[in-house]
Amino acid sequence: MTRQQLVNLIKKRRSYLCVGLDTDLKKIPAHLQDGDDPIFTFNKAIIDATRDLCVAYKLNTAFYEAMGVKGWESLEKTVRYIGSDHFTIADAKRGDIGNTSTQYAKAFFEALPFDSITITPYMGEDSVKPFLEWPGKWAIVLGLTSNQGASDFELKKLNHESSPYLYEYVLQTVSGWGNTENLMFVVGATQDAEFRNIRKWIPDHFLLVPGVGAQGGSLSAISSAAMNKDCGILVNASRAIIYKSGGKDFADAAREVALLYQQEMDQYLHSIFPD
Amino acid sequence: MTRQQLVNLIKKRRSYLCVGLDTDLKKIPAHLQDGDDPIFTFNKAIIDATRDLCVAYKLNTAFYEAMGVKGWESLEKTVRYIGSDHFTIADAKRGDIGNTSTQYAKAFFEALPFDSITITPYMGEDSVKPFLEWPGKWAIVLGLTSNQGASDFELKKLNHESSPYLYEYVLQTVSGWGNTENLMFVVGATQDAEFRNIRKWIPDHFLLVPGVGAQGGSLSAISSAAMNKDCGILVNASRAIIYKSGGKDFADAAREVALLYQQEMDQYLHSIFPD
Repeated sequence: MTRQQLVNLIKKRRSYLCVGLDTDLKKIPAHLQDGDDPIFTFNKAIIDATRDLCVAYKLNTAFYEAMGVKGWESLEKTVRYIGSDHFTIADAKRGDIGNTSTQYAKAFFEALPFDSITITPYMGEDSVKPFLEWPGKWAIVLGLTSNQGASDFELKKLNHESSPYLYEYVLQTVSGWGNTENLMFVVGATQDAEFRNIRKWIPDHFLLVPGVGAQGGSLSAISSAAMNKDCGILVNASRAIIYKSGGKDFADAAREVALLYQQEMDQYLHSIFPD
Repeated sequence: MTRQQLVNLIKKRRSYLCVGLDTDLKKIPAHLQDGDDPIFTFNKAIIDATRDLCVAYKLNTAFYEAMGVKGWESLEKTVRYIGSDHFTIADAKRGDIGNTSTQYAKAFFEALPFDSITITPYMGEDSVKPFLEWPGKWAIVLGLTSNQGASDFELKKLNHESSPYLYEYVLQTVSGWGNTENLMFVVGATQDAEFRNIRKWIPDHFLLVPGVGAQGGSLSAISSAAMNKDCGILVNASRAIIYKSGGKDFADAAREVALLYQQEMDQYLHSIFPD
Protein backbone atom coordinates (compact mmCIF):
# COMPACT_ATOMS: atom_id res chain seq x y z
CA MET A 1 0.00 0.00 0.00
CA THR A 2 1.35 3.41 -0.96
CA ARG A 3 1.34 6.43 1.32
CA GLN A 4 -1.32 8.09 -0.83
CA GLN A 5 -3.56 5.02 -0.60
CA LEU A 6 -3.19 5.03 3.18
CA VAL A 7 -4.02 8.75 3.40
CA ASN A 8 -7.06 8.15 1.19
CA LEU A 9 -8.30 5.43 3.57
CA ILE A 10 -7.91 7.81 6.51
CA LYS A 11 -9.95 10.48 4.70
CA LYS A 12 -12.62 8.02 3.62
CA ARG A 13 -13.11 6.33 7.00
CA ARG A 14 -12.47 9.47 9.09
CA SER A 15 -10.20 7.30 11.22
CA TYR A 16 -6.55 6.60 11.90
CA LEU A 17 -7.32 3.66 14.14
CA CYS A 18 -5.22 0.51 14.04
CA VAL A 19 -6.81 -2.51 15.72
CA GLY A 20 -4.22 -4.74 17.35
CA LEU A 21 -4.90 -8.45 17.05
CA ASP A 22 -2.82 -9.68 20.01
CA THR A 23 -5.02 -12.73 20.14
CA ASP A 24 -4.39 -14.97 23.15
CA LEU A 25 -6.20 -18.31 23.37
CA LYS A 26 -6.53 -17.84 27.14
CA LYS A 27 -8.40 -14.58 26.73
CA ILE A 28 -10.90 -15.31 23.98
CA PRO A 29 -14.49 -16.21 24.92
CA ALA A 30 -15.18 -19.73 26.20
CA HIS A 31 -17.75 -20.52 23.51
CA LEU A 32 -15.07 -20.23 20.79
CA GLN A 33 -12.51 -22.48 22.43
CA ASP A 34 -13.78 -25.79 21.01
CA GLY A 35 -13.61 -24.89 17.32
CA ASP A 36 -11.00 -25.98 14.82
CA ASP A 37 -9.17 -22.63 14.79
CA PRO A 38 -10.50 -20.47 17.64
CA ILE A 39 -7.86 -17.77 17.07
CA PHE A 40 -8.94 -17.24 13.47
CA THR A 41 -12.65 -17.46 14.36
CA PHE A 42 -12.14 -14.75 16.98
CA ASN A 43 -10.09 -12.55 14.63
CA LYS A 44 -12.62 -12.92 11.83
CA ALA A 45 -15.43 -11.71 14.08
CA ILE A 46 -13.36 -8.77 15.35
CA ILE A 47 -12.39 -7.80 11.79
CA ASP A 48 -15.98 -8.02 10.55
CA ALA A 49 -17.09 -5.84 13.46
CA THR A 50 -14.46 -3.13 12.98
CA ARG A 51 -13.62 -2.99 9.25
CA ASP A 52 -15.39 0.28 8.55
CA LEU A 53 -13.97 2.00 11.64
CA CYS A 54 -10.25 1.42 11.23
CA VAL A 55 -7.59 1.81 8.54
CA ALA A 56 -5.10 -0.75 9.81
CA TYR A 57 -4.75 -4.07 11.61
CA LYS A 58 -1.63 -4.95 13.55
CA LEU A 59 -0.90 -8.62 14.20
CA ASN A 60 1.46 -9.19 17.09
CA THR A 61 3.38 -12.22 15.84
CA ALA A 62 4.40 -13.38 19.33
CA PHE A 63 0.86 -14.47 20.15
CA TYR A 64 0.73 -16.62 17.01
CA GLU A 65 4.24 -18.07 17.38
CA ALA A 66 3.35 -19.12 20.92
CA MET A 67 0.89 -21.60 19.33
CA GLY A 68 3.53 -23.18 17.08
CA VAL A 69 2.70 -24.25 13.50
CA LYS A 70 -1.02 -23.94 14.23
CA GLY A 71 -0.52 -20.31 15.26
CA TRP A 72 1.43 -19.51 12.10
CA GLU A 73 -1.54 -20.92 10.14
CA SER A 74 -3.92 -18.63 12.06
CA LEU A 75 -1.63 -15.67 11.34
CA GLU A 76 -1.67 -16.40 7.61
CA LYS A 77 -5.44 -16.95 7.45
CA THR A 78 -6.02 -13.71 9.35
CA VAL A 79 -3.84 -11.46 7.19
CA ARG A 80 -5.38 -12.94 4.03
CA TYR A 81 -8.88 -12.43 5.44
CA ILE A 82 -8.17 -8.74 6.13
CA GLY A 83 -7.44 -8.23 2.44
CA SER A 84 -6.08 -5.18 0.66
CA ASP A 85 -8.46 -2.49 1.89
CA HIS A 86 -6.61 -2.07 5.18
CA PHE A 87 -2.95 -1.40 5.96
CA THR A 88 -1.57 -4.57 7.56
CA ILE A 89 1.25 -4.54 10.09
CA ALA A 90 3.30 -7.57 11.16
CA ASP A 91 4.30 -6.43 14.64
CA ALA A 92 7.31 -8.70 14.68
CA LYS A 93 10.20 -6.49 15.89
CA ARG A 94 12.63 -8.21 13.50
CA GLY A 95 16.14 -7.18 12.42
CA ASP A 96 19.41 -9.05 11.78
CA ILE A 97 22.47 -8.94 9.51
CA GLY A 98 21.65 -8.07 5.90
CA ASN A 99 21.19 -11.50 4.36
CA THR A 100 18.97 -12.54 7.28
CA SER A 101 16.86 -9.37 7.20
CA THR A 102 16.23 -10.13 3.53
CA GLN A 103 14.77 -13.48 4.60
CA TYR A 104 12.52 -11.76 7.15
CA ALA A 105 11.34 -9.37 4.44
CA LYS A 106 10.50 -12.37 2.24
CA ALA A 107 8.66 -13.98 5.14
CA PHE A 108 6.32 -11.04 5.69
CA PHE A 109 6.18 -9.37 2.25
CA GLU A 110 6.17 -12.46 -0.01
CA ALA A 111 5.21 -15.64 1.88
CA LEU A 112 2.67 -13.49 3.77
CA PRO A 113 1.01 -10.41 2.23
CA PHE A 114 1.71 -7.85 4.96
CA ASP A 115 2.13 -4.19 3.99
CA SER A 116 4.64 -3.54 6.75
CA ILE A 117 6.73 -5.00 9.54
CA THR A 118 8.06 -3.49 12.76
CA ILE A 119 11.87 -3.44 12.97
CA THR A 120 14.29 -3.13 15.86
CA PRO A 121 17.19 -0.82 14.94
CA TYR A 122 19.96 -2.02 17.31
CA MET A 123 22.06 -3.73 14.60
CA GLY A 124 22.17 -0.67 12.31
CA GLU A 125 21.86 0.08 8.63
CA ASP A 126 22.29 -3.31 6.98
CA SER A 127 19.67 -4.75 9.34
CA VAL A 128 17.05 -2.19 8.22
CA LYS A 129 17.75 -1.52 4.54
CA PRO A 130 16.63 -4.89 3.10
CA PHE A 131 13.07 -4.11 4.25
CA LEU A 132 13.03 -0.93 2.14
CA GLU A 133 13.53 -2.69 -1.17
CA TRP A 134 9.95 -3.89 -1.74
CA PRO A 135 7.82 -1.25 -3.53
CA GLY A 136 4.67 -0.42 -1.58
CA LYS A 137 5.98 -2.18 1.55
CA TRP A 138 7.09 -0.46 4.73
CA ALA A 139 9.59 -0.83 7.56
CA ILE A 140 8.25 0.57 10.83
CA VAL A 141 11.34 1.12 12.97
CA LEU A 142 11.26 1.32 16.76
CA GLY A 143 11.99 4.82 17.99
CA LEU A 144 10.69 5.42 21.50
CA THR A 145 8.54 2.61 22.88
CA SER A 146 5.66 2.75 25.33
CA ASN A 147 7.07 0.42 27.98
CA GLN A 148 8.95 1.12 31.20
CA GLY A 149 12.16 -0.35 29.73
CA ALA A 150 12.31 2.57 27.26
CA SER A 151 14.29 4.40 29.94
CA ASP A 152 17.04 1.74 30.03
CA PHE A 153 18.60 2.46 26.62
CA GLU A 154 16.29 4.47 24.34
CA LEU A 155 16.30 7.42 26.74
CA LYS A 156 20.05 7.42 27.43
CA LYS A 157 21.92 10.43 26.08
CA LEU A 158 24.71 10.00 23.57
CA ASN A 159 28.06 11.73 23.81
CA HIS A 160 27.51 13.89 20.73
CA GLU A 161 27.54 17.66 20.25
CA SER A 162 23.82 18.00 20.86
CA SER A 163 23.65 15.16 23.44
CA PRO A 164 20.69 13.50 21.78
CA TYR A 165 18.80 10.65 23.35
CA LEU A 166 19.63 7.33 21.70
CA TYR A 167 16.08 7.14 20.32
CA GLU A 168 16.41 10.66 18.86
CA TYR A 169 19.65 9.72 17.16
CA VAL A 170 17.98 6.53 15.88
CA LEU A 171 15.07 8.51 14.38
CA GLN A 172 17.38 11.02 12.74
CA THR A 173 19.82 8.41 11.42
CA VAL A 174 17.31 5.83 10.21
CA SER A 175 15.16 8.48 8.49
CA GLY A 176 18.13 9.04 6.16
CA TRP A 177 18.11 5.39 5.07
CA GLY A 178 14.68 5.52 3.43
CA ASN A 179 11.93 8.02 2.77
CA THR A 180 8.40 8.89 3.83
CA GLU A 181 7.03 6.33 1.36
CA ASN A 182 8.74 3.28 2.88
CA LEU A 183 9.64 4.16 6.48
CA MET A 184 7.54 4.78 9.56
CA PHE A 185 8.55 4.90 13.22
CA VAL A 186 7.08 3.51 16.42
CA VAL A 187 6.56 6.09 19.15
CA GLY A 188 4.59 4.97 22.19
CA ALA A 189 1.46 6.87 23.23
CA THR A 190 2.76 7.07 26.79
CA GLN A 191 5.56 9.34 25.55
CA ASP A 192 3.42 12.38 24.69
CA ALA A 193 5.93 14.84 26.20
CA GLU A 194 8.35 13.82 23.42
CA PHE A 195 6.01 14.07 20.42
CA ARG A 196 6.55 17.78 19.73
CA ASN A 197 10.31 17.29 19.63
CA ILE A 198 9.91 14.25 17.41
CA ARG A 199 7.89 16.26 14.91
CA LYS A 200 10.76 18.78 14.69
CA TRP A 201 13.15 16.01 13.58
CA ILE A 202 10.79 13.99 11.39
CA PRO A 203 7.83 16.22 10.46
CA ASP A 204 6.57 14.14 7.54
CA HIS A 205 6.91 10.47 8.45
CA PHE A 206 3.98 8.40 9.58
CA LEU A 207 4.22 7.26 13.20
CA LEU A 208 2.72 4.04 14.55
CA VAL A 209 1.55 4.87 18.06
CA PRO A 210 0.80 1.94 20.38
CA GLY A 211 -0.02 2.30 24.05
CA VAL A 212 -3.50 3.87 23.95
CA GLY A 213 -5.96 1.96 26.13
CA ALA A 214 -4.47 -0.78 28.32
CA GLN A 215 -1.11 1.01 28.55
CA GLY A 216 -2.66 4.37 29.45
CA GLY A 217 -1.76 6.74 26.60
CA SER A 218 -4.13 9.62 25.73
CA LEU A 219 -5.59 9.83 22.20
CA SER A 220 -6.25 13.53 22.59
CA ALA A 221 -2.71 14.40 23.70
CA ILE A 222 -0.94 12.43 20.99
CA SER A 223 -3.28 13.60 18.23
CA SER A 224 -2.70 17.20 19.19
CA ALA A 225 1.08 16.80 19.38
CA ALA A 226 1.84 14.38 16.55
CA MET A 227 -0.63 14.85 13.71
CA ASN A 228 0.76 16.38 10.51
CA LYS A 229 -0.86 17.61 7.28
CA ASP A 230 -1.41 14.03 6.03
CA CYS A 231 -2.58 12.89 9.48
CA GLY A 232 0.74 11.07 9.85
CA ILE A 233 -0.24 8.82 12.75
CA LEU A 234 -1.74 5.38 13.12
CA VAL A 235 -2.95 4.92 16.68
CA ASN A 236 -3.15 1.32 17.83
CA ALA A 237 -5.37 -0.15 20.51
CA SER A 238 -5.32 -3.88 21.12
CA ARG A 239 -6.55 -5.21 24.46
CA ALA A 240 -8.90 -2.27 25.07
CA ILE A 241 -10.84 -3.23 21.93
CA ILE A 242 -10.58 -6.96 21.42
CA TYR A 243 -11.05 -7.99 25.06
CA LYS A 244 -13.69 -5.43 26.01
CA SER A 245 -16.11 -8.29 26.62
CA GLY A 246 -15.21 -11.89 27.35
CA GLY A 247 -18.70 -13.11 26.51
CA LYS A 248 -20.72 -13.94 23.41
CA ASP A 249 -21.08 -10.21 22.69
CA PHE A 250 -17.30 -9.76 22.28
CA ALA A 251 -17.51 -8.54 18.68
CA ASP A 252 -20.28 -6.03 19.39
CA ALA A 253 -18.37 -4.79 22.42
CA ALA A 254 -15.20 -4.43 20.33
CA ARG A 255 -17.17 -2.44 17.76
CA GLU A 256 -18.50 -0.10 20.45
CA VAL A 257 -14.99 0.73 21.68
CA ALA A 258 -13.64 1.10 18.14
CA LEU A 259 -16.56 3.40 17.30
CA LEU A 260 -15.74 5.67 20.24
CA TYR A 261 -12.13 5.92 19.04
CA GLN A 262 -13.26 6.58 15.46
CA GLN A 263 -15.69 9.31 16.54
CA GLU A 264 -13.01 11.02 18.59
CA MET A 265 -10.55 10.73 15.69
CA ASP A 266 -13.14 12.21 13.31
CA GLN A 267 -13.12 15.40 15.42
CA TYR A 268 -9.33 15.67 15.43
CA LEU A 269 -9.24 15.15 11.64
CA HIS A 270 -11.47 18.19 10.96
CA SER A 271 -8.58 20.64 11.03
CA ILE A 272 -6.67 18.86 8.25
CA PHE A 273 -9.43 17.06 6.34
CA PRO A 274 -12.68 19.07 6.60
CA ASP A 275 -15.79 17.02 5.77
CA MET B 1 20.17 -27.31 29.58
CA THR B 2 22.12 -26.06 32.61
CA ARG B 3 25.47 -24.33 32.41
CA GLN B 4 27.16 -27.38 33.95
CA GLN B 5 25.61 -29.68 31.35
CA LEU B 6 26.85 -27.40 28.58
CA VAL B 7 30.38 -27.31 30.04
CA ASN B 8 30.31 -31.10 30.31
CA LEU B 9 29.43 -31.38 26.62
CA ILE B 10 32.33 -29.10 25.72
CA LYS B 11 34.72 -31.26 27.76
CA LYS B 12 33.36 -34.50 26.33
CA ARG B 13 33.40 -33.47 22.66
CA ARG B 14 36.52 -31.27 22.92
CA SER B 15 34.59 -28.65 21.01
CA TYR B 16 32.75 -25.39 21.45
CA LEU B 17 31.44 -25.39 17.91
CA CYS B 18 27.92 -24.28 17.12
CA VAL B 19 26.67 -25.25 13.67
CA GLY B 20 24.34 -22.65 12.21
CA LEU B 21 21.41 -24.06 10.26
CA ASP B 22 20.62 -20.99 8.11
CA THR B 23 19.03 -23.31 5.60
CA ASP B 24 18.01 -21.62 2.36
CA LEU B 25 16.04 -23.61 -0.21
CA LYS B 26 17.95 -21.84 -2.99
CA LYS B 27 21.29 -23.02 -1.68
CA ILE B 28 20.70 -26.67 -0.87
CA PRO B 29 21.75 -29.34 -3.39
CA ALA B 30 19.57 -29.86 -6.44
CA HIS B 31 18.98 -33.56 -5.74
CA LEU B 32 17.13 -32.70 -2.50
CA GLN B 33 14.78 -30.11 -3.99
CA ASP B 34 12.04 -32.51 -5.08
CA GLY B 35 11.36 -34.13 -1.72
CA ASP B 36 8.46 -33.44 0.61
CA ASP B 37 10.50 -31.33 3.04
CA PRO B 38 13.90 -30.56 1.49
CA ILE B 39 14.85 -28.17 4.31
CA PHE B 40 14.42 -30.86 6.95
CA THR B 41 16.08 -33.52 4.79
CA PHE B 42 19.10 -31.25 4.37
CA ASN B 43 19.22 -30.34 8.07
CA LYS B 44 18.93 -34.00 9.11
CA ALA B 45 21.91 -34.95 6.96
CA ILE B 46 24.00 -32.03 8.29
CA ILE B 47 23.09 -32.92 11.88
CA ASP B 48 23.91 -36.59 11.41
CA ALA B 49 27.28 -35.62 9.89
CA THR B 50 28.28 -33.18 12.64
CA ARG B 51 26.65 -34.38 15.89
CA ASP B 52 29.87 -35.64 17.49
CA LEU B 53 31.86 -32.54 16.52
CA CYS B 54 29.69 -29.74 17.91
CA VAL B 55 27.94 -28.87 21.15
CA ALA B 56 25.26 -26.59 19.77
CA TYR B 57 23.00 -25.96 16.78
CA LYS B 58 21.71 -22.50 15.97
CA LEU B 59 18.59 -22.22 13.84
CA ASN B 60 18.19 -18.85 12.17
CA THR B 61 14.42 -18.45 12.28
CA ALA B 62 14.31 -16.00 9.35
CA PHE B 63 15.17 -18.71 6.85
CA TYR B 64 12.26 -20.85 8.10
CA GLU B 65 9.75 -18.00 8.36
CA ALA B 66 10.55 -17.08 4.74
CA MET B 67 8.89 -20.41 3.79
CA GLY B 68 5.66 -19.67 5.67
CA VAL B 69 3.80 -22.41 7.57
CA LYS B 70 5.86 -25.08 5.81
CA GLY B 71 9.05 -23.46 7.09
CA TRP B 72 7.77 -23.34 10.65
CA GLU B 73 7.09 -27.09 10.35
CA SER B 74 10.67 -27.66 9.16
CA LEU B 75 11.94 -25.60 12.10
CA GLU B 76 9.98 -27.70 14.58
CA LYS B 77 11.00 -31.02 13.03
CA THR B 78 14.65 -29.93 13.04
CA VAL B 79 14.84 -28.84 16.67
CA ARG B 80 13.07 -32.03 17.77
CA TYR B 81 15.46 -34.12 15.66
CA ILE B 82 18.49 -32.51 17.31
CA GLY B 83 17.25 -33.73 20.69
CA SER B 84 18.59 -32.97 24.14
CA ASP B 85 22.27 -33.83 23.73
CA HIS B 86 23.07 -30.49 22.10
CA PHE B 87 22.42 -26.91 23.18
CA THR B 88 19.79 -25.51 20.81
CA ILE B 89 19.59 -21.83 19.91
CA ALA B 90 16.62 -20.11 18.26
CA ASP B 91 18.43 -17.26 16.55
CA ALA B 92 15.32 -15.13 16.44
CA LYS B 93 16.42 -11.69 17.73
CA ARG B 94 13.11 -11.22 19.56
CA GLY B 95 12.13 -8.67 22.24
CA ASP B 96 9.01 -6.61 22.96
CA ILE B 97 7.00 -5.24 25.89
CA GLY B 98 6.73 -7.63 28.82
CA ASN B 99 3.48 -9.45 28.04
CA THR B 100 4.61 -9.96 24.44
CA SER B 101 8.09 -11.18 25.37
CA THR B 102 6.37 -13.76 27.57
CA GLN B 103 4.55 -15.02 24.46
CA TYR B 104 7.86 -15.26 22.57
CA ALA B 105 9.34 -17.23 25.47
CA LYS B 106 6.38 -19.62 25.30
CA ALA B 107 6.85 -19.93 21.54
CA PHE B 108 10.47 -21.05 21.79
CA PHE B 109 10.65 -22.67 25.26
CA GLU B 110 7.24 -24.42 25.38
CA ALA B 111 5.68 -24.80 21.91
CA LEU B 112 9.21 -25.55 20.65
CA PRO B 113 11.89 -27.19 22.83
CA PHE B 114 14.75 -24.71 22.31
CA ASP B 115 17.28 -24.21 25.13
CA SER B 116 17.80 -20.56 24.25
CA ILE B 117 16.76 -17.63 22.12
CA THR B 118 18.66 -14.57 20.91
CA ILE B 119 17.21 -11.27 22.17
CA THR B 120 17.55 -7.70 21.01
CA PRO B 121 17.95 -5.32 23.97
CA TYR B 122 16.67 -2.01 22.54
CA MET B 123 13.40 -1.97 24.53
CA GLY B 124 15.06 -2.54 27.91
CA GLU B 125 14.45 -4.57 31.04
CA ASP B 126 10.83 -5.68 30.70
CA SER B 127 11.59 -6.89 27.15
CA VAL B 128 14.38 -9.19 28.40
CA LYS B 129 13.29 -10.42 31.83
CA PRO B 130 10.41 -12.71 30.77
CA PHE B 131 12.94 -14.94 28.99
CA LEU B 132 14.84 -15.48 32.26
CA GLU B 133 11.94 -17.12 34.07
CA TRP B 134 12.20 -20.62 32.57
CA PRO B 135 14.64 -22.84 34.54
CA GLY B 136 17.34 -24.29 32.31
CA LYS B 137 16.46 -21.91 29.47
CA TRP B 138 18.63 -19.00 28.32
CA ALA B 139 18.34 -15.52 26.88
CA ILE B 140 21.25 -14.69 24.57
CA VAL B 141 21.24 -10.90 24.36
CA LEU B 142 22.83 -8.94 21.51
CA GLY B 143 25.91 -7.08 22.65
CA LEU B 144 28.23 -6.22 19.78
CA THR B 145 27.27 -7.79 16.47
CA SER B 146 29.47 -8.91 13.59
CA ASN B 147 27.92 -6.77 10.86
CA GLN B 148 28.92 -3.41 9.44
CA GLY B 149 25.84 -1.75 10.97
CA ALA B 150 27.29 -2.38 14.46
CA SER B 151 29.00 0.99 14.07
CA ASP B 152 25.69 2.85 13.63
CA PHE B 153 24.39 2.52 17.20
CA GLU B 154 26.18 -0.23 19.15
CA LEU B 155 29.52 1.56 18.83
CA LYS B 156 28.23 5.03 19.70
CA LYS B 157 29.48 6.44 23.01
CA LEU B 158 27.07 7.38 25.75
CA ASN B 159 27.21 10.62 27.68
CA HIS B 160 28.12 8.93 30.98
CA GLU B 161 31.07 9.39 33.32
CA SER B 162 33.10 6.65 31.66
CA SER B 163 31.76 7.35 28.13
CA PRO B 164 30.99 3.72 27.45
CA TYR B 165 29.95 2.46 24.05
CA LEU B 166 26.23 1.70 23.90
CA TYR B 167 27.01 -2.03 23.59
CA GLU B 168 29.28 -1.87 26.65
CA TYR B 169 26.54 -0.22 28.66
CA VAL B 170 24.09 -2.87 27.38
CA LEU B 171 26.38 -5.71 28.50
CA GLN B 172 26.93 -4.18 31.91
CA THR B 173 23.27 -3.30 32.47
CA VAL B 174 21.69 -6.49 31.13
CA SER B 175 24.15 -8.70 33.05
CA GLY B 176 22.55 -7.34 36.22
CA TRP B 177 19.10 -8.58 35.15
CA GLY B 178 20.03 -12.27 35.23
CA ASN B 179 22.98 -14.46 36.02
CA THR B 180 25.56 -16.69 34.36
CA GLU B 181 23.07 -19.59 34.43
CA ASN B 182 20.38 -17.93 32.30
CA LEU B 183 22.09 -15.14 30.31
CA MET B 184 24.59 -15.19 27.49
CA PHE B 185 25.63 -12.41 25.11
CA VAL B 186 26.24 -12.22 21.37
CA VAL B 187 29.61 -10.78 20.42
CA GLY B 188 30.63 -11.03 16.78
CA ALA B 189 33.87 -12.76 15.81
CA THR B 190 34.80 -9.80 13.65
CA GLN B 191 35.09 -7.67 16.81
CA ASP B 192 38.17 -9.37 18.26
CA ALA B 193 39.75 -6.04 19.32
CA GLU B 194 36.90 -5.65 21.81
CA PHE B 195 36.96 -9.12 23.39
CA ARG B 196 39.59 -8.37 26.06
CA ASN B 197 37.59 -5.37 27.27
CA ILE B 198 34.40 -7.40 27.25
CA ARG B 199 35.99 -10.03 29.47
CA LYS B 200 36.84 -7.31 32.02
CA TRP B 201 33.15 -6.38 32.31
CA ILE B 202 31.61 -9.85 32.08
CA PRO B 203 34.33 -12.39 32.86
CA ASP B 204 32.05 -15.36 33.57
CA HIS B 205 29.19 -15.25 31.07
CA PHE B 206 29.07 -17.49 28.04
CA LEU B 207 29.35 -15.61 24.75
CA LEU B 208 27.79 -16.73 21.49
CA VAL B 209 30.25 -15.74 18.78
CA PRO B 210 28.96 -15.67 15.19
CA GLY B 211 30.96 -14.39 12.25
CA VAL B 212 33.64 -17.06 11.86
CA GLY B 213 33.86 -18.33 8.29
CA ALA B 214 31.77 -16.44 5.73
CA GLN B 215 31.98 -13.20 7.70
CA GLY B 216 35.75 -13.43 8.19
CA GLY B 217 36.31 -13.72 11.96
CA SER B 218 39.38 -15.63 13.27
CA LEU B 219 38.83 -18.63 15.55
CA SER B 220 42.34 -18.33 16.93
CA ALA B 221 42.01 -14.64 17.83
CA ILE B 222 38.65 -14.93 19.54
CA SER B 223 39.57 -18.11 21.43
CA SER B 224 42.67 -16.46 22.78
CA ALA B 225 40.87 -13.28 23.81
CA ALA B 226 37.51 -14.56 25.01
CA MET B 227 37.88 -18.02 26.54
CA ASN B 228 37.39 -18.26 30.31
CA LYS B 229 37.91 -21.06 32.82
CA ASP B 230 34.68 -22.82 31.74
CA CYS B 231 35.48 -22.20 28.05
CA GLY B 232 32.72 -19.57 28.04
CA ILE B 233 32.32 -19.28 24.28
CA LEU B 234 30.21 -20.96 21.64
CA VAL B 235 31.63 -20.20 18.22
CA ASN B 236 29.14 -20.42 15.38
CA ALA B 237 29.80 -21.14 11.74
CA SER B 238 26.88 -21.44 9.34
CA ARG B 239 27.50 -20.97 5.62
CA ALA B 240 31.15 -22.08 5.81
CA ILE B 241 30.00 -25.52 7.02
CA ILE B 242 26.58 -26.23 5.57
CA TYR B 243 27.27 -24.91 2.05
CA LYS B 244 30.84 -26.16 1.69
CA SER B 245 29.65 -28.39 -1.15
CA GLY B 246 26.56 -27.90 -3.26
CA GLY B 247 26.66 -31.48 -4.53
CA LYS B 248 25.66 -34.92 -3.31
CA ASP B 249 28.64 -34.93 -0.95
CA PHE B 250 27.32 -31.90 0.99
CA ALA B 251 27.08 -33.73 4.32
CA ASP B 252 30.58 -35.23 4.05
CA ALA B 253 31.95 -31.83 3.06
CA ALA B 254 30.19 -30.20 6.02
CA ARG B 255 31.71 -32.83 8.31
CA GLU B 256 35.20 -32.11 6.97
CA VAL B 257 34.92 -28.39 7.75
CA ALA B 258 33.36 -29.04 11.17
CA LEU B 259 36.16 -31.50 11.93
CA LEU B 260 38.81 -28.86 11.14
CA TYR B 261 37.10 -26.44 13.53
CA GLN B 262 36.79 -29.13 16.23
CA GLN B 263 40.45 -30.12 15.91
CA GLU B 264 41.54 -26.49 16.21
CA MET B 265 39.23 -26.02 19.21
CA ASP B 266 40.64 -29.13 20.86
CA GLN B 267 44.06 -27.44 20.89
CA TYR B 268 42.75 -24.23 22.43
CA LEU B 269 40.89 -26.22 25.12
CA HIS B 270 44.09 -27.89 26.39
CA SER B 271 44.97 -25.00 28.66
CA ILE B 272 41.67 -25.17 30.59
CA PHE B 273 40.62 -28.81 30.12
CA PRO B 274 43.73 -31.01 29.77
CA ASP B 275 42.97 -34.43 28.22
